[in-house]
Amino acid sequence: MNETIVLLHWVYAAVMFAGAGYFIWLSRRKTGIPSYEFLIAAIIPIWSGLAYFSIAIGQGLLQTSDKTVYFARYIDWVVTTPLLLVALALTAMFYTPKKNKVLIWSLVSADVVMILTGLIADFSPSSLTYVWYFIGIGALAFILSLIWGPLLNIAKEESPALEKHYKRTAAYLTVLWVCYPAAWIIGPSGLGLTQELTDVAIFIFLPILSKVGFSILDLNGLRALHPPAVADKMTAL
Amino acid sequence: MNETIVLLHWVYAAVMFAGAGYFIWLSRRKTGIPSYEFLIAAIIPIWSGLAYFSIAIGQGLLQTSDKTVYFARYIDWVVTTPLLLVALALTAMFYTPKKNKVLIWSLVSADVVMILTGLIADFSPSSLTYVWYFIGIGALAFILSLIWGPLLNIAKEESPALEKHYKRTAAYLTVLWVCYPAAWIIGPSGLGLTQELTDVAIFIFLPILSKVGFSILDLNGLRALHPPAVADKMTAL
Amino acid sequence: MNETIVLLHWVYAAVMFAGAGYFIWLSRRKTGIPSYEFLIAAIIPIWSGLAYFSIAIGQGLLQTSDKTVYFARYIDWVVTTPLLLVALALTAMFYTPKKNKVLIWSLVSADVVMILTGLIADFSPSSLTYVWYFIGIGALAFILSLIWGPLLNIAKEESPALEKHYKRTAAYLTVLWVCYPAAWIIGPSGLGLTQELTDVAIFIFLPILSKVGFSILDLNGLRALHPPAVADKMTAL
Repeated sequence: MNETIVLLHWVYAAVMFAGAGYFIWLSRRKTGIPSYEFLIAAIIPIWSGLAYFSIAIGQGLLQTSDKTVYFARYIDWVVTTPLLLVALALTAMFYTPKKNKVLIWSLVSADVVMILTGLIADFSPSSLTYVWYFIGIGALAFILSLIWGPLLNIAKEESPALEKHYKRTAAYLTVLWVCYPAAWIIGPSGLGLTQELTDVAIFIFLPILSKVGFSILDLNGLRALHPPAVADKMTAL
Repeated sequence: MNETIVLLHWVYAAVMFAGAGYFIWLSRRKTGIPSYEFLIAAIIPIWSGLAYFSIAIGQGLLQTSDKTVYFARYIDWVVTTPLLLVALALTAMFYTPKKNKVLIWSLVSADVVMILTGLIADFSPSSLTYVWYFIGIGALAFILSLIWGPLLNIAKEESPALEKHYKRTAAYLTVLWVCYPAAWIIGPSGLGLTQELTDVAIFIFLPILSKVGFSILDLNGLRALHPPAVADKMTAL
Repeated sequence: MNETIVLLHWVYAAVMFAGAGYFIWLSRRKTGIPSYEFLIAAIIPIWSGLAYFSIAIGQGLLQTSDKTVYFARYIDWVVTTPLLLVALALTAMFYTPKKNKVLIWSLVSADVVMILTGLIADFSPSSLTYVWYFIGIGALAFILSLIWGPLLNIAKEESPALEKHYKRTAAYLTVLWVCYPAAWIIGPSGLGLTQELTDVAIFIFLPILSKVGFSILDLNGLRALHPPAVADKMTAL
């Protein structure tokens, strides 16, 4: 592996562990945000940091005949992307005492299909890569339809301030999540238009924004939104 | 792979996706059936359809020295069979607001052991195949004892109409689930009495009945059973 | 494999299945202990017994160039150690109707990281073994800090008798769980100071104490603790 690639993965792992430390530190201040929000926000970068760390020390990747498969990315994503969707769904249902579990499990199921099809695509002969890729795109389209359909409606019914925060958070996630398959398909896993270093850099940059960046945006929005008066009740949820 | 075998897997995947579409369409009509029933009914054929689709395009199988191991079947089963048991258990507890989670987790745990022992058996040298096979049979016997013991008692306590529907659904599942290990043991994974094409045809035919067929039987029974007057309350569960 | 090693694994599997039978038998007596305690106590030795059984028949291990990796141990641990922590956490929250799920998921997440880093360490080249090993030690330290911090505080708030039982059970688990990484690092997976037979004997002896032994200690303590008068209410939990 190229030295720059190794360095980028070290930087990524450091950013993730710093992010996790920040969320754990935040969780100690009583701000009325339920503690599961901090748990999710902390697990995501710890897991993702460990996955990229395994690449940095030369283990989480496989040299096939014509390309490098960074399989640790999928080990990362299969855990962190469902958690990001759970966090977004819990934001939409922030004031609802009884969370809509059917909606949450629908998101998680579609997400697991999306990540596994990406993994299979990456290990498939090139004639079959696109078949799996487009099934994954279908799963992503379904996820986005839930985010902008039923989840948005739940946020709307709760309060205008929550609706505004939810829309901002959901838009942030949507833009980034559309970049992933775009980067994937133009990179060595797909068409091979970008070189390996560019591909690696994109998959360092995007996840920092969509993991640590997402949780900062979400948690700060919830804190701003949340009147101190009802803080205790919320914590008890 | 034989052309007929490929074709059969394509047909199977088509039937599964059609079934999933049907359950999603059903879920849009307000009939008093809780929405988790439709979610489970839809996930099962989507996952199973994808698994068989991977066989159809030549990926979900492995040619060993003396037989073909269709490992994608186990990837299918390890997800879909626990969901089928959860659906059956939720049918038995249809009117109970507080579901018996200990019973549900007992079923799911035994089921996972049953599927994993089947997977190990299929990849074991023939001297050890039967050891794992009979452990799996033990797990199946335990599952059936729960279905016809405590679960039936719960259904009985709820209402005579529910008891009748539960018995019919449980009998349907029992008959089909006994056919699976019977087909497995006479096929290439076990004694090798049936030829590969026959074996494949059985594992196309049985799952259509026990997945899409089961959910149609279960959902229609619940709808017939369920008086519209209490529909709203039930939906809220 | 050495005959003594094979024999030891057979003995272990027999002890585990006997333990599971004992817990299932205990569950039939109404003693006011919630039934999920028995379910967890029974699943642990059944799963662990099956994993060691696979080693006994020569399957759950891999001969690498310089050592034997008993990978079935990790398949055992990744399921049984989270369940042991759940059992301990539920003991701490014995009288609390609303269990603290954030605490339980924090324990389980750290535990899964601990077991997976052990697995990766065992398959890593020796220069990287210690990196993963110390990440696992970090996860263990975090688990212990939760056991002796927030979990102990919950038990303290409930009753002095529960606090006493919790402290005894937690101390028992802590001592044994510290022995595991100690045995691991001096054995063939780490420094190679102990010979294979000693290593195997330790990993037969420790798990008997920390699985069947732990559940006997925990269940008997809960039964002694628990006044018959409130038994029915507790069972309903």
